[in-house]
Amino acid sequence: MTDASDSSVRTEGLEELRAIVEAELERRLPPPESTPEVLREPMRYSLVAGGKRIRPILVLLACRACGGRDDEALPAACALEMIHTYSLIHDDLPAMDDDDLRRGKPTNHRVYGEASAILAGDALLTHAFAVLASDTPRRDRIPAMVQVLAHAAGPNGMVGGQALDLAAEGGETSPEHLVEIHELKTAALFAAATRLGAEAAGAEPATANALERYGKHLGLAFQAIDDVLDVESSSDVLGKTAGKDERQAKLTSTVVHGVDGAREEAARQSRLALDAISGIAGASTLVDLTEQLMERIA
Amino acid sequence: MTDASDSSVRTEGLEELRAIVEAELERRLPPPESTPEVLREPMRYSLVAGGKRIRPILVLLACRACGGRDDEALPAACALEMIHTYSLIHDDLPAMDDDDLRRGKPTNHRVYGEASAILAGDALLTHAFAVLASDTPRRDRIPAMVQVLAHAAGPNGMVGGQALDLAAEGGETSPEHLVEIHELKTAALFAAATRLGAEAAGAEPATANALERYGKHLGLAFQAIDDVLDVESSSDVLGKTAGKDERQAKLTSTVVHGVDGAREEAARQSRLALDAISGIAGASTLVDLTEQLMERIA
Repeated sequence: MTDASDSSVRTEGLEELRAIVEAELERRLPPPESTPEVLREPMRYSLVAGGKRIRPILVLLACRACGGRDDEALPAACALEMIHTYSLIHDDLPAMDDDDLRRGKPTNHRVYGEASAILAGDALLTHAFAVLASDTPRRDRIPAMVQVLAHAAGPNGMVGGQALDLAAEGGETSPEHLVEIHELKTAALFAAATRLGAEAAGAEPATANALERYGKHLGLAFQAIDDVLDVESSSDVLGKTAGKDERQAKLTSTVVHGVDGAREEAARQSRLALDAISGIAGASTLVDLTEQLMERIA
Repeated sequence: MTDASDSSVRTEGLEELRAIVEAELERRLPPPESTPEVLREPMRYSLVAGGKRIRPILVLLACRACGGRDDEALPAACALEMIHTYSLIHDDLPAMDDDDLRRGKPTNHRVYGEASAILAGDALLTHAFAVLASDTPRRDRIPAMVQVLAHAAGPNGMVGGQALDLAAEGGETSPEHLVEIHELKTAALFAAATRLGAEAAGAEPATANALERYGKHLGLAFQAIDDVLDVESSSDVLGKTAGKDERQAKLTSTVVHGVDGAREEAARQSRLALDAISGIAGASTLVDLTEQLMERIA
C-alpha cells in the first residue's frame, strides 16, 4: 500500500503539512485590535510553540482522503490544535501535573503566571469554537462538527480522561481501566480529528465512520508510543520532562503491560487503525503517517 | 409600560422562569453512564448551586419577545449558564480571586481541590457547546449561535475582560478603561443572552440587533449595581464575599464614580437598555426585569 523505502519524501510531506498548519494557526488567533494584549500574548506563546501538530495534520489528511480541499479542513484543524494546546497549558499547572517544560520551552504559567495561564487556556478553548463556526466553508456541516469537537474534548472525552488520569495516580492498575483512560484522554481527540476532516469534506457517513475508527485506534497506538518514549527518552528529545509518569505514579501502558508489552499494544492498535481505512482509496497518506508514528519506537 | 405596583406577580414570574431553568440545567448535564463521576460531581455541584439565573432567563425572555417557544431557547439558555458557572469556578481559584464562598456555599476548589475545579470548569465550558449544537431545534441558526456564544465568552469577550480586570488591580482608574473592562467582562455575555434568544426564535436581524443592544446596556447596568452591592451588602445577603473588590484593589464603578455615581450610571444604562427595545411589542417582560434589577439598589 505504500513505499516504505521512500522515507525522505514522506518526511518532507509531513513538514509541508506542518508548515501549512503553523501559518494558519498564527492567522486564526483573535485579532490584536480587539483582544487584550495581556491575554493574546500567552495564548500565542503556547499555540505557536511548535509541537508535532499531529492532530491538525490528521484533519487535513482525512479531508483529502475524502476528496476535500485543505481550505475546507483548516478551520477545524486549527480549532482542534487550539483545544489540544489549552489542555497542555492547564495540564502543566502547579495544581495539575506541575511541569516546567513543554515543547522545549518553559511552560505557560512559568512565563506568565498561573492566573494568565488559566485564562489563556480558557480563551484558546473558547476561541476554537469561534474559529470552527465562523470559518468552516460547508455551513451545513457546522452543527455536526461542533458536536463532534465538544463531545471529544468535553466530560465524555478528553477532560473526562484527564479527571480519571488524576484520580488513577497510585491506584488501580487494571488493563480495562487503562483503556478507559486512554480512550477518553487521547483517542477521543484523534477520532474527532479524522471525523472532522471527513465532515469538512462532506463525506458519506460510512467513510466518516471508518475514518473516525482509524483515528481512535491511531490515538490508542499514539498513547502507548508516548508511554514508551516517556520511559526511554531524555527530556531534550521529548521537549517535555521525561520519566515524569513514573514519578507521578501515573497509570500508563508500560506500567500495565511492561515496555515490550506497550510496544506490542502500539503495533496492535496501529494494525486496527490500518484495517479501518483499508477500503478508502485516498487514504494512502494516512497509512504513511501511521507507519511513521510506529517508527518512533522501532 | 408596566404596572410597577404589581410586584408580586412579577416576582412569581421570575421564580417560575428560574424553576424552568433549574430543571433544564440538571437534565442537560452530561449523562452519568458515560461521564466519570470524579468529574460530573464537581460540575454538578457548581451548576445546580442556585444563583439568580439572570442570563438564561434573558435568553428565554428574548426568545419569547420574538414569538419563540421556550424549548427553542432552552439549549442556549443552559449553555450560557454553564459558561457563566465555569467562569465563576475559575475566577474563585487561589491563583485568581482566591475566594471561599460562592452562591452561599464553599467554592468548588474548597470542596474538590484545585485540579478538579480547573477540570470541572473546562468541562462545563466545553459541554456548553455540545448542548447548544446538539439540542437547538432550529439547526440553521446553530452556526451563528455558536459564533455568538464563543465570541462573547472568549478572548474578545468575557475572558478578555477577566484578563484586563486582573491586570487593572491597583492600576489605572480612568472611566474609559472601566467601560472597556465591563463591556468585555459582563456586558458581552448579557448581549449574547438576548441575541441567542432572538436567534433561537428565528428573529429578523433588526429585532435581534435591538435585543443585543438591550442586553449590552443591561449588562453594564448590572455590573454597576453589582459594584454598589459589593460595597453596601453583607456576605450573607450576597452569597459571596462582600467588600472583596476594595481589598483586591479592583477597578470598579464605585472606585471611578463613587457609590452615588455608580447608582446614576446603573440608571443611565438601564434607560439605554429600555430605549433599545421600545419598538418591540413582546418585550414587556424585559422591561419588568430591568426595573426589578434596578430595585436591588433603590
